[in-house]
Amino acid sequence: MSGAFVGGIAAGLTAPYYAVIFTSRRTDGDNGYGEASDAMVALAASQPGFLGIESARGSDGIGITVSYWDSEEAIAGWRRNAEHSATRERGRSLWYSHYEVRVCRVERAYAGPPARA
Amino acid sequence: MSGAFVGGIAAGLTAPYYAVIFTSRRTDGDNGYGEASDAMVALAASQPGFLGIESARGSDGIGITVSYWDSEEAIAGWRRNAEHSATRERGRSLWYSHYEVRVCRVERAYAGPPARA
Repeated sequence: MSGAFVGGIAAGLTAPYYAVIFTSRRTDGDNGYGEASDAMVALAASQPGFLGIESARGSDGIGITVSYWDSEEAIAGWRRNAEHSATRERGRSLWYSHYEVRVCRVERAYAGPPARA
Repeated sequence: MSGAFVGGIAAGLTAPYYAVIFTSRRTDGDNGYGEASDAMVALAASQPGFLGIESARGSDGIGITVSYWDSEEAIAGWRRNAEHSATRERGRSLWYSHYEVRVCRVERAYAGPPARA
């Protein structure tokens, strides 16, 4: 959607809005994760109320993905998406040894040095 | 502090609580970042109201650190910490080409497969 951020840093959003923090530890092996992860990012970006997504995974296997949404209703809609639900089930059974999901209201935000190319 | 998580995944926290999402893109070179980063994590963990911290940085240079706190007052206290303030200034001038800080209220949280060793 126009103005949404996929990859990189989601900037220029105006609080209040909502964030879903997904912190995970991967199991060994890919098991279809890479392809499914790319598909889920593309699918999320097509949902109503999607504002952006940021993701990082370090060499210790800990990953953090934060998606941003304009309302709690948008988050609930994404959670109900059938393809997303099926992929979450694969995540629970195949890809993650542990994860935490936190649904947050972003109260305020600020940024440091202006974005460079 | 007892019960706080440093490294790994912060689990078992009871909502509501607060999260500070710090997303950044690093400049080239270390420039003292590694040592200062470790010191800041240790200092944060010693602050009143600290609940835990999670961090990941991928090979594309995008990093996400989320710290968890029991109140907005705890976040304000950490922000006022003199050593933290001085290190933030080094971050702005040396380490980050861009960052976003988002202060959030965690409304609800849930977890997937039980933590394994």
